[in-house]
Amino acid sequence: MQFSSSLLENAVNEFARFPGIGKKTALRMVLHLLKQDESITENFSETIARMRRDIKFCQRCNNVSDADICSICANSLRNQSLICVVENLRDVIAIENTQQFSGTYHILGGVISPLDGIGPDQLQIESLVQRIQKEQTEELIFALSPNIQGDTTIYYIQKKIKDFNCRITTIARGIAFGGDLEYADELTLGRSLQNRMPVDKYISH
Amino acid sequence: MQFSSSLLENAVNEFARFPGIGKKTALRMVLHLLKQDESITENFSETIARMRRDIKFCQRCNNVSDADICSICANSLRNQSLICVVENLRDVIAIENTQQFSGTYHILGGVISPLDGIGPDQLQIESLVQRIQKEQTEELIFALSPNIQGDTTIYYIQKKIKDFNCRITTIARGIAFGGDLEYADELTLGRSLQNRMPVDKYISH
Repeated sequence: MQFSSSLLENAVNEFARFPGIGKKTALRMVLHLLKQDESITENFSETIARMRRDIKFCQRCNNVSDADICSICANSLRNQSLICVVENLRDVIAIENTQQFSGTYHILGGVISPLDGIGPDQLQIESLVQRIQKEQTEELIFALSPNIQGDTTIYYIQKKIKDFNCRITTIARGIAFGGDLEYADELTLGRSLQNRMPVDKYISH
Repeated sequence: MQFSSSLLENAVNEFARFPGIGKKTALRMVLHLLKQDESITENFSETIARMRRDIKFCQRCNNVSDADICSICANSLRNQSLICVVENLRDVIAIENTQQFSGTYHILGGVISPLDGIGPDQLQIESLVQRIQKEQTEELIFALSPNIQGDTTIYYIQKKIKDFNCRITTIARGIAFGGDLEYADELTLGRSLQNRMPVDKYISH
């Protein structure tokens, strides 16, 4: 793509760096900013820069947060001895949207995947184990994507905490095997939380 | 969509303002920034802000430009007495990508469309007329979208400049390369029959 302005070209290249954004979409986004008042772009760039600079990760559950402890962990109306284990922030948002869950979360930051070079040490597993021990968590719900990597992660964590007095469940198999949690519809995801099953029963299949 | 951080929520909303970008895509873009070093986001937001603040519009053709005159108008190797009239910047980039045109451009900023409240005064038509008169332009090529609005605009400008010694053409209309004859609309097919061309000329391209 040929540009008559290097300012424009640089801006298009910046947008085109995002996953799923090609040059044509990036150009459309830049032209959208050019069509509007300068203050709109100023506001946009300031909001994005401020977000990256000031955002924190919750010291308890690794969720993104405005403070040291996220609003879910700080909410006394939520069941603090119930932890839902998820891969990433998008899964938290997906589950929150079902409005079926009133416990807390623990974001692992991924799942165990030796082929991608991701072992237990790269994930927030140790902090989860310490948290369960310290807080005497009553129940752990695994809400990981139903695939080999998710199952491996469940198996690994289950072994680590088997001596604690903590009930371990997983969300029900309402989601198709190989499906992506993030794109599941709210009904399926909500029901799979309600119909969660003991992990022994799950692993034996 | 529920967020545990207002910083995150604001950033997602900013991205979701772009046309064609939904909340899920916006969230994916923000998480992409969160995954990377803070300097990447700083650089992104600075580049976008600088682009909007410093970009100029060419005083001759209204193209975006780093200087008062754009690099196409300032290029002495291009035929400066040949003007291609287009709606917007994206059309300039599309034509430049063909590498078949070595004249200059004039960006109208749209086409005459009374239903959308766009009259000749909202477009860069007067500046085009003055430019043709002043520069004694040899040829004007209309490269507007082939629809009622485009045709109206061509007709309007043609009337305005009919007394100048300037050749007026439009890009060829016909069946698109790779297009299916069966699905072509009657107007296009009818005109492509009327404006048929010698096969020697066609094959040589």
